[in-house]
Amino acid sequence: MKTNQPIGIFDSGIGGLTVTKAVAEQLPNESIIYFGDTAHLPYGDKSAQTVQGYTKKIADFLLARNVKLILIACNAASAAAYKLLKDYIGDRAVLLNVIDPVVDFLSANCSDKRVGLIGTKLTVQSQVYQQKISALARQIDFHALATPLLVPIIEEGFFEHKLIEIALAEYLAHPTLQNIEALVLGCTHYPVIKKSIANFYKNKIDIIDAAKIVANKVEATLISHRIRSSTTTPKHRFYVSDYTEGFAKGTRLFFGEEIKVELVHIF
Amino acid sequence: MKTNQPIGIFDSGIGGLTVTKAVAEQLPNESIIYFGDTAHLPYGDKSAQTVQGYTKKIADFLLARNVKLILIACNAASAAAYKLLKDYIGDRAVLLNVIDPVVDFLSANCSDKRVGLIGTKLTVQSQVYQQKISALARQIDFHALATPLLVPIIEEGFFEHKLIEIALAEYLAHPTLQNIEALVLGCTHYPVIKKSIANFYKNKIDIIDAAKIVANKVEATLISHRIRSSTTTPKHRFYVSDYTEGFAKGTRLFFGEEIKVELVHIF
Repeated sequence: MKTNQPIGIFDSGIGGLTVTKAVAEQLPNESIIYFGDTAHLPYGDKSAQTVQGYTKKIADFLLARNVKLILIACNAASAAAYKLLKDYIGDRAVLLNVIDPVVDFLSANCSDKRVGLIGTKLTVQSQVYQQKISALARQIDFHALATPLLVPIIEEGFFEHKLIEIALAEYLAHPTLQNIEALVLGCTHYPVIKKSIANFYKNKIDIIDAAKIVANKVEATLISHRIRSSTTTPKHRFYVSDYTEGFAKGTRLFFGEEIKVELVHIF
Repeated sequence: MKTNQPIGIFDSGIGGLTVTKAVAEQLPNESIIYFGDTAHLPYGDKSAQTVQGYTKKIADFLLARNVKLILIACNAASAAAYKLLKDYIGDRAVLLNVIDPVVDFLSANCSDKRVGLIGTKLTVQSQVYQQKISALARQIDFHALATPLLVPIIEEGFFEHKLIEIALAEYLAHPTLQNIEALVLGCTHYPVIKKSIANFYKNKIDIIDAAKIVANKVEATLISHRIRSSTTTPKHRFYVSDYTEGFAKGTRLFFGEEIKVELVHIF
């Protein structure tokens, strides 16, 4: 692989742009190709088998565009399809997900703590975080809760509205999350409501936002594989599998600025 | 076509079971084959082109099972794909949608009234109700509002919770719906929250629930085509394109009883 090849990032929709933004800021010399599978959004309510089928097609699309590294910027897809994609892609590109870097972070920083996680149904039901934490043999008292309404409420723009406050109050008061000392935001949409979550906890617990942790991991991986780019003219391109006005506008919410998205049919 | 052929009904998910229930009650001698496209749910946020592609495959599936009539039990799919499917199916089966019966009902019962409608984005943006009402040259002062959060809130079970009350208060107070005398529930999920909607209006306006109106239309169509069944042993089968526990449990909410759903891959 060559240093000037682009990085591929994909998500079930445009929520993965929060991670993409963090990667672009941390690695200003890298070109990025983003694919948002808006035709199949949301992944979080679907079966693992269905999501696996979609991700193989997306990997083909990114590999055809000559990416050196693929980042699965979606917790549900990371949980359902990382192992399968690892075999499928082989040595054609380096594959990263958004779960392992967070597990490593917890392992290094949250030993002997009671840690909560909120995410979509697929992410939570997969128990992927629990399994990876157990494999590290670390004493982390880990408790995950599915909070499936947060994504649609955020996507509809009610993220600074009493609707999100009530949904959060309902979810965060659940017995599963009592007495936690840190909370992992296990979905790429959730950085948008980080402040509301911190307010619920009166800033007394750590809110662990994966975006920055994952961007660090991408940088470390590029360095260790000696494929870090040094171009001063990186180019980003953003593709979606279904185009609506809402997705175009939504890029501002997740990426911090409105960006041009292109429709492409790959299924 | 023969009288003992089944009726085919499809929806983007299991919400169409509200209409299916009304049809089954009104026509106890008919066998029904239901297809819920849970792999692609929700249709309401997708583009018309994408939804059209899905519905052709579903029509193929139902026609292969020898249906005499196909009912599109989904407002978004009725808006996006009825014309296309009408040409595609030709005389292989009778095709009905959930919009035309309601427009006929409004035409007969709501002349000179101010009427509102709530539905998904795709249904509202298609302006299909407005166009059909205009074509009838009736004086109905019609105003539609997209209310995309109602489906996920209902599907997550918060339909008798302050979350649905607040979402409804937000949507129904919108300027678009002021001073209406009747409200059309333009989505098959909404009968589940009919009581909350009636409470918001203090029972002072008519809530028009399409399920019964559509069941009447199905009966009238079977009679006019002389294909009404007289079997005393009808059999219903329920298929989905993606299976999760949530869909199986959800059948109780929309059909009134838990029913067996079968996974089938048609895409």
